[in-house]
Order: sequence, then C-alpha cells, then structure tokens
Amino acid sequence: MIVVMKPDADAEQVERVCEVVREMGLRDHVIVGTDLTVVAVIGDDRKKDKGKLEQIDGVDRVVPILAPYKMAAREGRPSTTVVRISEQCIIGGRDVPVIAGPCSVEGEQQIIEVAQMIRDAGGHALRGGAFKPRTNPYAFQGHGEDGLKMLAAARAVTGLAIITEVLTPTDVELVTEYADCLQIGARNSQNYRLLEACGQQPRPVLLKRGLAMTIEELLQAAEYVLSAGNPNVILCERGVRTFEDHTRNTLSLSAVPEVHQKSHLPIIIDPSHGTGHARLVDDMSRAALACGADGLILEVHQDPVHAMTDGGQSITPTALATMLPVLRRIARAVGREIPTPAGIPA
Amino acid sequence: MIVVMKPDADAEQVERVCEVVREMGLRDHVIVGTDLTVVAVIGDDRKKDKGKLEQIDGVDRVVPILAPYKMAAREGRPSTTVVRISEQCIIGGRDVPVIAGPCSVEGEQQIIEVAQMIRDAGGHALRGGAFKPRTNPYAFQGHGEDGLKMLAAARAVTGLAIITEVLTPTDVELVTEYADCLQIGARNSQNYRLLEACGQQPRPVLLKRGLAMTIEELLQAAEYVLSAGNPNVILCERGVRTFEDHTRNTLSLSAVPEVHQKSHLPIIIDPSHGTGHARLVDDMSRAALACGADGLILEVHQDPVHAMTDGGQSITPTALATMLPVLRRIARAVGREIPTPAGIPA
Amino acid sequence: MIVVMKPDADAEQVERVCEVVREMGLRDHVIVGTDLTVVAVIGDDRKKDKGKLEQIDGVDRVVPILAPYKMAAREGRPSTTVVRISEQCIIGGRDVPVIAGPCSVEGEQQIIEVAQMIRDAGGHALRGGAFKPRTNPYAFQGHGEDGLKMLAAARAVTGLAIITEVLTPTDVELVTEYADCLQIGARNSQNYRLLEACGQQPRPVLLKRGLAMTIEELLQAAEYVLSAGNPNVILCERGVRTFEDHTRNTLSLSAVPEVHQKSHLPIIIDPSHGTGHARLVDDMSRAALACGADGLILEVHQDPVHAMTDGGQSITPTALATMLPVLRRIARAVGREIPTPAGIPA
Amino acid sequence: MIVVMKPDADAEQVERVCEVVREMGLRDHVIVGTDLTVVAVIGDDRKKDKGKLEQIDGVDRVVPILAPYKMAAREGRPSTTVVRISEQCIIGGRDVPVIAGPCSVEGEQQIIEVAQMIRDAGGHALRGGAFKPRTNPYAFQGHGEDGLKMLAAARAVTGLAIITEVLTPTDVELVTEYADCLQIGARNSQNYRLLEACGQQPRPVLLKRGLAMTIEELLQAAEYVLSAGNPNVILCERGVRTFEDHTRNTLSLSAVPEVHQKSHLPIIIDPSHGTGHARLVDDMSRAALACGADGLILEVHQDPVHAMTDGGQSITPTALATMLPVLRRIARAVGREIPTPAGIPA
Repeated sequence: MIVVMKPDADAEQVERVCEVVREMGLRDHVIVGTDLTVVAVIGDDRKKDKGKLEQIDGVDRVVPILAPYKMAAREGRPSTTVVRISEQCIIGGRDVPVIAGPCSVEGEQQIIEVAQMIRDAGGHALRGGAFKPRTNPYAFQGHGEDGLKMLAAARAVTGLAIITEVLTPTDVELVTEYADCLQIGARNSQNYRLLEACGQQPRPVLLKRGLAMTIEELLQAAEYVLSAGNPNVILCERGVRTFEDHTRNTLSLSAVPEVHQKSHLPIIIDPSHGTGHARLVDDMSRAALACGADGLILEVHQDPVHAMTDGGQSITPTALATMLPVLRRIARAVGREIPTPAGIPA
Repeated sequence: MIVVMKPDADAEQVERVCEVVREMGLRDHVIVGTDLTVVAVIGDDRKKDKGKLEQIDGVDRVVPILAPYKMAAREGRPSTTVVRISEQCIIGGRDVPVIAGPCSVEGEQQIIEVAQMIRDAGGHALRGGAFKPRTNPYAFQGHGEDGLKMLAAARAVTGLAIITEVLTPTDVELVTEYADCLQIGARNSQNYRLLEACGQQPRPVLLKRGLAMTIEELLQAAEYVLSAGNPNVILCERGVRTFEDHTRNTLSLSAVPEVHQKSHLPIIIDPSHGTGHARLVDDMSRAALACGADGLILEVHQDPVHAMTDGGQSITPTALATMLPVLRRIARAVGREIPTPAGIPA
Repeated sequence: MIVVMKPDADAEQVERVCEVVREMGLRDHVIVGTDLTVVAVIGDDRKKDKGKLEQIDGVDRVVPILAPYKMAAREGRPSTTVVRISEQCIIGGRDVPVIAGPCSVEGEQQIIEVAQMIRDAGGHALRGGAFKPRTNPYAFQGHGEDGLKMLAAARAVTGLAIITEVLTPTDVELVTEYADCLQIGARNSQNYRLLEACGQQPRPVLLKRGLAMTIEELLQAAEYVLSAGNPNVILCERGVRTFEDHTRNTLSLSAVPEVHQKSHLPIIIDPSHGTGHARLVDDMSRAALACGADGLILEVHQDPVHAMTDGGQSITPTALATMLPVLRRIARAVGREIPTPAGIPA
Repeated sequence: MIVVMKPDADAEQVERVCEVVREMGLRDHVIVGTDLTVVAVIGDDRKKDKGKLEQIDGVDRVVPILAPYKMAAREGRPSTTVVRISEQCIIGGRDVPVIAGPCSVEGEQQIIEVAQMIRDAGGHALRGGAFKPRTNPYAFQGHGEDGLKMLAAARAVTGLAIITEVLTPTDVELVTEYADCLQIGARNSQNYRLLEACGQQPRPVLLKRGLAMTIEELLQAAEYVLSAGNPNVILCERGVRTFEDHTRNTLSLSAVPEVHQKSHLPIIIDPSHGTGHARLVDDMSRAALACGADGLILEVHQDPVHAMTDGGQSITPTALATMLPVLRRIARAVGREIPTPAGIPA
C-alpha cells in the first residue's frame, strides 16, 4: 500500500507513519515529491487493516496496491481452470455449455417435462430452484428437499446434470446428495459461512456475483471457497444494481474479459437475471459468447405465462432451440464451440 | 398492479391478459386511453409473480401498485414501535440512544476498557463483533464464542447492554445466550434463513440495510423477522454503494424520514460504515439526529491506530464525549433527547 | 399516468385528485381496489407536470404510463432509420461500419498518418477531437478550428468521413463546415441548447449517452434533435457510471436491444470510453456486434504511449486490423456485414 | 502518480516505464516490493495523461496521487470563502441563508406574490427559472428574458436578491444584467464553455453538482470558474443518481463535510431536487444544517398543485415559515445562525 500524506504534513508525522508501518511487521519507504510525501509500504499487507493508518495526523489517505486474493489470481496459471460438472457440461475449456431450466422446481411432472424439452433443444445441464431466496416473505419459497428429489428424477430421465442453489450451511450436505453443482446466489455471495461450507464439500460451486459486488470482491468470495479446499469454482455475472431502470439489473459483460485477465477461474453469464426480460435474453446471450463467456445459464420454462416465479425473464424451450444456431456461429467465430449433444443436429 | 399494453396491442391481446389475471384469482379492469390501453388488476397480488404477464403478446410492462409488505407498514400504526434493548437503551421513543464500541472484540481487557470509556463518555449500549464477516478470507474473523464471553464480561463491569452480529442460523442460539440484541449485517440482509432464525428468538434484532437494497426491500427483510414472530426490529441505514468514491459508502439519510413515513419501525444510523472515515463521523451523526434518526451506532476504539479492524472509521471515546453536547442540542431542537446516564453531566 | 392513493385516503381526497386531473385537461377514471384506490388518467399527459398531483392530500405517488417521446419511438416505424455519413459509413442498415481515430487531433501530420493507417486497417470513418471537453481545466483542450482543418486535410488524403465533437451552440456552424457528422458528447447529452442547435443544421448527429442517463432520457435527448428538424440521429452507448471500479465506466450493452425495441434510431457502441482500458476493447467490440450494434466507434492512436489524451484506452491501427477478421465473422453470424473497403482483403 | 507493475513484470519493462516518465518531464523512483514493483512518479503530473502509461507492457495500473485542482483546494486557506450575493444573503460565513422560490417563473404576478410570501416567511433570496433545462422537449421551457424581467420586478418589490439559471454561454451577458447570482445547473455542470463564460463575468456563481459527478470532479468544475477569474463560487449538492428509487435522487450529505475538508469553497444544499418529494424537504433541510451546510436552496410555490413545473417537490411559503424555527435551533446548535430579516420574529 501507499500512504499519501497531506501537502502540509510535517516530518514528525511522516516518521509516525513509518513507525506504525514497522509495528505492523512491514517496511516503510519514504518518497518526497514536489507537492507532497508518500510512504510506500513494502511486504505482504493482505491481512493488515489499512484504514487505521488514515487516523495518523498528517495522513490524507491510504491506497492499496496488492490484490487481496492469491489462489484466485491469474498469476502463475496461464490456462483457465476447467470445471467438470458432468460429461456434457465442462466449463472453462474450449466448449461453452448452456445450462437451462426454470427458476423454481414446481412439480415432478413439470421439471421432467421441461428437462426433456431442454435436452431436446440442445441444453447441457438443468438448473432449477428447490430452495428459493425470495425478497418477499409471502412468496413461494420452493419445495425444499422434495424439489431436490424432483430434480434427481429429471436427471434420471434426461441424463442432464443438476445445478441448484443452496441457501444456508446446514443445507449443504443435503444439497450435495442430489446436485451435481451447488449454486451460491447473488444475495448470498458474501455469506461467508456458506462460502466456507461449500468449500468443504466435493461438488463444483457456481458462485454468482452480488448486486453490489466489485470484481475484486467476487474474487475474494471465490477465495473463501478455494482456500477451504474446493478448487472447482465457476463465477457467474448476473447483473449488478445501478440507476438503470429498463432492465432488472445491469449486465456488466466487461466482467468476462476482466475476470479472464485477473483470474484463472471460468466465468459464465446469466442473461435472464442480468436483464429481467425474456425479450433481451437472446441478444445478451450472443454478446456473452462473443466476449468470451465460458457458458450460459438461462431461465427456461415450458409455459412462462404460468410460471410460479420469474415468468417475465424465462424463455421457452422453443426459443432456446431457435437461439442456438446463431450462438453456435458466434462461439465458433471466437474459437469456441457449443457442444452438440448426441441426436441434435449441429 | 397495472398491466400496460403496447400502443399497437389489439383487443384479443388485452382479453388474453384479462384471462390470465382471472386465472391468478384476481379481477381485471380495462381502461382504454387515448394512446394505449391498460389493465388494472384488482385484488391482493402480493404473492403473485407479476413478471409473467409481461410475456403475453402485446404487453409492454407491468407496474406494481401495492407495497409488498404488511406487518412492517405504517398504515394503522400511528406511533413508532418502541424496542427496548435495556433500561438505558430504548429505541423508537423520545430518547435517542448512542450505541458504541469497537468493530471487533479484540480481547477481554480491551473490550472492558473501551466499554468503561464509552459508558463514561455517555454511551448507552456496547457494540462489538465476535463473529466478523470479512471480505478478505485471510483477515481476522473474530474470536467467536470467546468474543461473546468477553462482551458479557464487559457488560458485567459496565452495565451496558450488548449488541453483536450473528452470521448464520446455527449460531443464533449461541448468540442469544450472550447478547441483548442481535445484529444482522449488511451482507446478510437478504440471508432469508438467518432472518427467519432471528425472527424465532426473543431478542430484539438490529437489521442493517444491504449495500444495494431499496427501502422497499429493507422493509421486506424486516417482514421476514416480523412474520416469524419477533416484533422487535430496529432498522439501520449504514450507507449504500454508489459511484461516489470519497466515502466507503454513500450514507443516504433520506432513508430516515422515508422509513418513518412508510413503516412503524424505528431506524438508527451508522455513520462509521456510512462514510468509512472517522473525520466525517461527527458531522454525519449531527445530520442523522437532525432528520429524526432514532439512535446512532458508532465505531469507537480506544486506540484506532492499533485497531485490528476498521481502524480508519473508528473514533476515540474522547471524540465521542466531545461530540455529545452538540448532538444533545440537535436532538432537543427536534424534540428528542439523548439520555444522560447517571453520573454524566448533561 | 396512474395516481395511487394511500390506503387510508377518503372519497373527498379522491374527488380532489379527479378535479385537478380535469383542470389539467385530462380525464379521470377511478378504480377502487381491495387495498387502495387508484385514479387512471386518460389523455396525452406528456407535457403535464405529474409531480404536483403528489401534493394532494391522500396521494401516495404518481406512476407515469406513456413514454415521454414520440418522434424517437419505434411505434409505426418497423425499420431502423438509416443514417448516411458517407458512402463508406452508412449506419442503421445491414452494414456495420467502424469509426476510428485518436481522442484528440494532435497535429496535421499525426492525424493524416493515423487516418491512413485506419483506412488501411479497414476503418470506415475518422473520429478525432478538435474541441475537447476536459474534466481538468489545465489539461489540453484541443486545437479548435485548426484541429478541424487538420481533420479536413486527413479526409482529403484518405477519403474517410470526419466525425468530431461540438461543445457549444456557437461552434455548431463552424464545425458543420468541416465535419461530416457532429458528435454530442456524454457530458453535453442534456445540454438542450446544443441539442437544438444540432437539430437545426443538416449534418447527421452522433449523440452519446450521458453517464447517468436512462434510456428514456437518451431518447428524449434525441427527440430534441429530431423535433428541431434533423432526422439523422445516431445514438451511442459509451458506458454509464456505477460503483464498478475495474472499468472507467460500465458498458451497458443491453442498451442495444432495448433501443432497437423502443426506437427506430440506430445505436453504436464505444468500447474505448465504455471500459477505459485498451485491453478490454477487442472483447467488448465483439460483444457489441453480437447483440446487434449498428456500428463501433473506437479510439485508435498510432502510438498510445505518447498520445496527448486517453492513451490508456486507445488501441493501435495494428490492433484494429487484427481485431477485424473475428468481428466480421460475428457480424455475419448475426446477419450483418462489416463492409470491406476497396483494396482490403476480406 | 504511482505506476503499479504486474507481479511478473521484468526489469526491462520497469525501465521502459521510467523512460516514458522521464520523457513526460517527470522523475521516476522505483520501489521493489515483496510481491511486485511500483514506480513512484515525482513532479507535478496534473496536466499529464496518466492512462497512456497503462499501455506499456508489464504495467498493471496507474494510481493518481495529486488532487487535480489547485485554486479550489483547502490547502493554505484555513477559512471558507465568503460569497456575498446581497446584504441579506452572504454565504460561507457564520450566517446560513435560505434561498427560496418556484422552479419556474410563471408570470409577473405569480413571482411577485411568491417573493413577498417568501420574504415574509423569512427567506433571504429568491430563486426562479427563466431559462429551464427540461428533459422533455415538449415541456415548458421557461419565459426567457421576460422571465428575467419578472424576477427583477419581484426584486424591486421585495428587496430579495435573484438567483437564476443560465443554460448557454451566449445567454451569460443577458442573465448578468438581471441576476445577482448565476446558477449552473446539474446537467450543465460539465459544460466547460459555460463554466468559462461564468468565470469571466462578475456575478457570484452557484454551481450545482452533476448527477454522476464525484466530489473531485465538482471541484475541478469549480476550478474552471475560478481559473477564468471569478473567485465567487458556491457549490451545491442536490442529489446524485443511484439505484435508490424512493427519492428522485440520493442526497449525499457527506459532501458537505468532505467539501469543507478538501476545499475553501462554501457549499449549500438543495433538498427539493435532492429528494424530489415535498414530504422529505423539512427533515433533509434539518440534516443539511446540522452537518454544516452554508445555506439552503428550496423550491417554494404558493400553490404547488398548480405549479407549471416541479410541483411534487415544492413546499408552500407557509411550510417554509413553519420549518424555520427548528432550523434556527439546529443552526445555533452547530454555531451558526439563520439571519432574521428585519420585521420577522426570531
């Protein structure tokens, strides 16, 4: 970090900063500029509280220099981590899978039916919520373990791997029994006990970016999972909250190349939550693949007008099938491939 | 809700909307305007998924009308709910208490010492973190149950009630054994399992606003606690995340009158997190009281330069004592009172 | 608009709203719901001040329904407006041109040289600032009219059309003498006198979205130009300001399909300002074309390390040439074409 | 500035950075840390383009250190600049004046009447728009010069000084003929030609913060006016644009102490635009005074329900008179005074 002194700071104040830096187990290096003095701090300050240096008289501010994560960092890892959810759904390599499914598991028949339609349309894995985090306490909260069982039934029928959300540490064990990949939702992206619990189980983790999370914080959240022992983390950009009101969230696609430059972890895009409107999903899926996303996760429902949740942003399996040919061409244009499941025309 | 049709929607499309509205158990009312048609939906649609109506051909958008919370609403409750944390710290009445303490409980000696200093300076309750949610996985995570015991020791010495954060549902029982009030932090403000767990225990709950949370979502989060059986919820504005970079967060004080107009729940202000800089805490505390805040929660440390966490935004007990006379005058100017603990000169 | 009454509003208050609505020359239609009453207002209220209805006792809020623009709206115009800047640079049709050039015109030699390199790399028009809006009053403000002459010299040599910014109404006449297209920058996007002045001259107008502008406000700004008599408006998304700090701005690509759905005006993307980092420009250009952008505008400098302005976000002509083959493939994947200038291998 | 190298940057890359720094007329100072190397740049880099250094291989990013403004800076100016609009309205000293008036000048009778009511209620100057910047091109745009004459008539009757907005450089001369203080609105806060024009005329300037402007940018905008020769600049916080939707803008009161710490310029608060709702104006005015605002500017209309513009956020003269006693008490609590005009009971 760099401690920036005020223009009128005196030598004694600078010396006080140096003393505290040394007390912190770090080294100080004073640079006297034409307008002001800065103290460069040398050593690994990742675990140190930088803010307190701002309290010393004469200090204007403290500027961090080192990235606050290590295991998630790109340095020393030239290739992107490949996370295998199933044979059909491998994320981080040349292939770009499409994960699709309804917001909520509504019933066994419903989830099996939509899973079949998704498989036939060309999808590679099934998403669906059994435990639903709802802003409104009176809204449908998901079928819980029964929902997990319905997902497993859909997998048995279709062969599609299951990605489903876990809301709280005590449910992690239960969800790992059924799911092939655990999702940590945007609202839980800084629920550190949940991150740790997901880091201590063997399934891959799909970590969604929080609504007000910087890329650096997203990588620190991933670091919680990685440092707890689980190397299989997939990041997901799903829109952040801004002043924009034409979409539910603002899908920030520059997160894709940024994550690829700063980290070795793969990143996929959720254009359904990222826009909140079915009418924008196709175009934003195209954009996601074009800028290098390692996969897509889409809300797909067989009858969005009667969906229990998120009907406004769900597309139909037919729409998915219609979208895929152009998405395939875009993937190829950037040197990637949307895998063609057996029996689906390329 | 109001379903707004596109200007070129035809009668059949409008009728389709009406049908779906009726299927949802609600009543439809069509209004033909000069430029377009809207369908007003009559009935309690709080539990309904509005988005799916956007999927019907000819629909432009859906505008919600009813507030999505009931128990937290102001209607029918002319007076603000009074939450009693202790004899000295009653929030929501005429009195405006000051809760103060360090970000983290660092050790028994430290917490007892700062608690004494806070009591002597005029504080009414003690805050301090035993379980710390840290962005950085390698940073100090708090002393856990030992920290709770240290807080209890500080209470035994000073008589100050304890407010401390709980991070996960399984810790709720443990924390209630020690704390007088449970804090739900900003990062957990939409951790619905935690909200429910705090709603099912008897202590008052201090619910912090999330970094990207609207007022409506804050009141829905409170509704989770209220509807689980706990009527004693205190809201806390602590800054939201915006493009502003001179402060850690943007303290949005208009939340105070807005919450008072929309809800019967009391609301306090945290200017420490709300600004991130000790140098702004006094002025923003003044502003908070002036616009009607029901209390303050401040980070206070006996030696901020050596604090383990959040040193940059902690003020000293001396600073607290120095601030209070002006704060008292402001409180009186708006018809409130900062209570003077026994033995403290008014 | 819809006037939403408070749950406890009485009949007299509703009647007062209706009276004021009628005074405004509009019609009222009262709908009594189960929880509250709303007054639907019928008639063209685009020129009316909605806010004042909120002042009537018993009113909770007013919800606008009609879009506040007409000439910019999609309704009744199934095809996108085609704006011809030059033979090589036609925006809004099947072709997707690339506008490129340095942030500032630095000298005649420099601008001619980079224009040649851009033409040879495959660019379709030349951008370059003669009048520069600089945040810092002490920074280089552009060469003014001399800069315009240098641009004209570059056009004479290369045949590339010129797009350059105009800052103030009194410069409009001068800039139209030299430029083929006038740019209104993000900071001037709500400078209504400038919008009007650009609406009263014959050149096409490139209107950049402001840093905190909604899509609806962008279309209203376009409406200023359109209603002043100039039908040739090109919109440009160049990033909005959010909490994100890894980029200079947050490039909101969902603006592309949204503008296409709401308006007949073409929209191009500026990934240079939209990210602020040369290292992100290629990927975001790809994403822009994939989601349907009608063109790109890129900062290109022959020697970014020595650029006078915006060096950090400028790419080299070589980088541009390297990018184009993949961009062409993406354009074709979505049914568009980046035109190949004569003499450039496709 | 500090140039942060990537962890894997080599010595040659560091040397290349140093070379470019020296070419820029600055001095380089290399610091080799445990994880990475940084190059501290010594000298006044305020006029230099920092971004271009990011283009050198091996550079991770560039961190600015010096504030980009000088004349607006607090350093060397211990006391706040006092700006005298009139005898009754002096901003920046102990007194805290209240500027009030309608959004638009609607007619001579109207403006004289409301000016009298404001004077009688205790206001110190009259605001009112003759030239109105309207988002909607079809909305009322103000009476122009006739509006200025009506304001002058109101001043002749009441003795209140006039503050009114100027939209474009060519109107500056005209507005200075009538107004006592020129307002630069939020949408024009980075209209640099207008800032310069206002810097070259003799009246005080009220500079509103833009909707997406940082404090640093606000001070740079002020620097445009100051460096053009006009030392009498008053800043105004009027809300910034964020995700919050309960208010029209988010009033960021921490701007008050921040500006006071970084600059010698006075700052006033506009709670009318800052909230957009008359029902929040009183509480936010209280908060503004408590945290040290040097004045208030309020929208006041004799009949908000019939106001031509901004009716929703205008309070009545009666409401103003009712607010003032508490505001006076708060001002006194923080060592300030709202002056009592002759004939008004204190």
